[in-house]
Amino acid sequence: MLIVQKYGGTSVGSIDRIKAVAERVVRSRREGNNVVVVVSAMSGETDKLIGLANQISPNPDEREMDLLLSSGERISSALTAIAINELGFKSISLTGRQVGIITDKAHTKAKIERITAERVKEAIDDGIIPVIAGFQGVTETSEITTLGRGGSDLTAVAVAAALNANLCEIYTDVDGVYTTDPGIVPDARKLDKISYEEMLELASLGAKVLQTRSVEFAKKYDVPVLVRSSFNDNPGTLVMKEDKEMEQVAVSGVAYDKNQAKITVIAVHDRPGVAAKLFNAIADANIVVDIIVQNVSSDGKATDISFTVPKTDNKKAFKITEGIAAELGAKGVYLREDIAKVSIVGVGMRTHSGVAAKMFETLARHGINIIMISTSEIKVSCIINAKFTELAVRVLHDSFELGEGKKEKVKPKRKITLKKN
Amino acid sequence: MLIVQKYGGTSVGSIDRIKAVAERVVRSRREGNNVVVVVSAMSGETDKLIGLANQISPNPDEREMDLLLSSGERISSALTAIAINELGFKSISLTGRQVGIITDKAHTKAKIERITAERVKEAIDDGIIPVIAGFQGVTETSEITTLGRGGSDLTAVAVAAALNANLCEIYTDVDGVYTTDPGIVPDARKLDKISYEEMLELASLGAKVLQTRSVEFAKKYDVPVLVRSSFNDNPGTLVMKEDKEMEQVAVSGVAYDKNQAKITVIAVHDRPGVAAKLFNAIADANIVVDIIVQNVSSDGKATDISFTVPKTDNKKAFKITEGIAAELGAKGVYLREDIAKVSIVGVGMRTHSGVAAKMFETLARHGINIIMISTSEIKVSCIINAKFTELAVRVLHDSFELGEGKKEKVKPKRKITLKKN
Repeated sequence: MLIVQKYGGTSVGSIDRIKAVAERVVRSRREGNNVVVVVSAMSGETDKLIGLANQISPNPDEREMDLLLSSGERISSALTAIAINELGFKSISLTGRQVGIITDKAHTKAKIERITAERVKEAIDDGIIPVIAGFQGVTETSEITTLGRGGSDLTAVAVAAALNANLCEIYTDVDGVYTTDPGIVPDARKLDKISYEEMLELASLGAKVLQTRSVEFAKKYDVPVLVRSSFNDNPGTLVMKEDKEMEQVAVSGVAYDKNQAKITVIAVHDRPGVAAKLFNAIADANIVVDIIVQNVSSDGKATDISFTVPKTDNKKAFKITEGIAAELGAKGVYLREDIAKVSIVGVGMRTHSGVAAKMFETLARHGINIIMISTSEIKVSCIINAKFTELAVRVLHDSFELGEGKKEKVKPKRKITLKKN
Repeated sequence: MLIVQKYGGTSVGSIDRIKAVAERVVRSRREGNNVVVVVSAMSGETDKLIGLANQISPNPDEREMDLLLSSGERISSALTAIAINELGFKSISLTGRQVGIITDKAHTKAKIERITAERVKEAIDDGIIPVIAGFQGVTETSEITTLGRGGSDLTAVAVAAALNANLCEIYTDVDGVYTTDPGIVPDARKLDKISYEEMLELASLGAKVLQTRSVEFAKKYDVPVLVRSSFNDNPGTLVMKEDKEMEQVAVSGVAYDKNQAKITVIAVHDRPGVAAKLFNAIADANIVVDIIVQNVSSDGKATDISFTVPKTDNKKAFKITEGIAAELGAKGVYLREDIAKVSIVGVGMRTHSGVAAKMFETLARHGINIIMISTSEIKVSCIINAKFTELAVRVLHDSFELGEGKKEKVKPKRKITLKKN
């Protein structure tokens, strides 16, 4: 098999850890696999470099930041290649440019346009283990770019797609994706496999272990991604195309997000263009709106609009909304910060009925009031009072029988087969 | 004027120092100069990276080391560009590859083959201050190389040559080149200017402030190099083409080298090819022999050969010599480690007579025995007992009237004019 193995910052966080990574790479090689390695910067390194830059400027030039930050992965890739060499296997480190990762010009958050991977293929053909510096690329004009936080995941998935690899392994410091945050529900169960779609919807659970854009990329190119720990040999969670087995379960996980604030515009005139004006202004400020609720006005003249934004943007969003509300003659604007979003996610929702109703009923039974509701094909989200977050997660996890104790009954061990190439 | 300014590791050793460098760059720019900046890695950074690699392997692959070590200069160049931007002047950092510094394939000690410097010229034309990551280049096949210790000096001089700059300023942590080590002779005087040839011969004094290969490069392309401190505004020492004024002084400086060991082969047969056999074997082991003395044999049959090697190589050289000596039927091989070399250097020697005699006489007057002698056109070196090193340096410095107190009499203030381009 051709396997791309990506090791995150904690996995290469020290010389001893880098040696352990080399051992793991070599073990996979000895098992007969061709291995391509992608590494993040040693943990703390990127933040250290950002700290240095911020000591000089509160707003350093993004082009310079990319050249600065790309150094972290170059260091860890060279050290990892040295460690693999030391075990008697030929290895070379390759920069984003040497791999031919061509991106657009959006410094600090560049998008991959194409990957040639010529030198990676050559190395594999020559029996050499390539160690790729993650997180980075170059533009057509040879400017160095980075792919944003978690960008090494994207490097790994994109390289796996370019090489048509059998598997992309993402090594991190957790065992995989859980049915919910084990910090809140000790009974939370590691999932053996999960669909790309569920992974995307489970942002609050999934994003910690796998960058969202890399999941989208994996989905687009159908790259099976195995998330697992570099600290043990546990099997991890396979993120893959939805299959029949997955549909048997209505709910795969319970997610939550405390980084939410709600803004309500009271009694705005109910006429066409009002919502467009407001949300265009907010989008122009690069603020992502999550849930929007507009009530039908009782008198046909005025309506209330509520929406949520990331808590970090709430002051900015509030100010913009106040300006627009004044223009529109609304009665007032209110900001509420003590809210959270809890979500249940599962591809099985498409075929199971009554899932949303069960969620609402469960919350109601525990005295948790629902402030806003939002649904997608495979997700139901409720905005609730933030103080009930942990309680809501626990009772939903229990209600949908996701815990370790319920494993045998609800979720038969899923068979995992990888695509052949 | 077009000025290339190179800042060494201590000059960019902290965020405050980097800010001070930016201030200095901007000041020169405000004075009407076009400035191109070259930076070393922050002090300690390169050794830290080497230390990490050596924790993994005692003998890490040199290609990997180059990718690893080149990161240090990339970090400092990006931070310096950010600091210059912060002062309101547009600046971009450029890697060795972006500058087009093409080298041979000799990893860790690559030689520059050519420099395109297209992006540097573009930046200058656009009013942008380029900050070049020193010490690094790329091969024709895009492999990253480094230029060896002190390689950032070479980057600066080579870029200055490629741009036909008026001046290359090397900023370091000392005020310039002194007549001798001020640690030994407090009266040592900073030289206003010095010829390339003298600088090369004064290795023990000069190499600390300016890498030897960069002096050779500057000489070849006639680049005036001003060595000065980044910690004050003192005028520094200009390293330049020999001029009439320099010839007026017989001796410019007194150098010493304690990293010397002497090997003597006793009573070797005095026949053709003996020396060739010995020194070929030593050269094959990459050991550089400094001084060689062979006495004429009194009986025409056997002779003694003495030579010096770097102390760090003496065990290896001794072993090789023993082997050859046995083959040649010599009576024995002796190693002496307690020796040092003191040298007087000056382009004026070519036109002043009696300089060597004065040196020997001075040493004799202070009871210092001369073990070996070696001369070049502008240098006389004596091997002496190591314990007399400081004494010899002091008395020679005094004898040739090089001290601060003697300045007015011996060395009129040299006028410095730079070439126009």
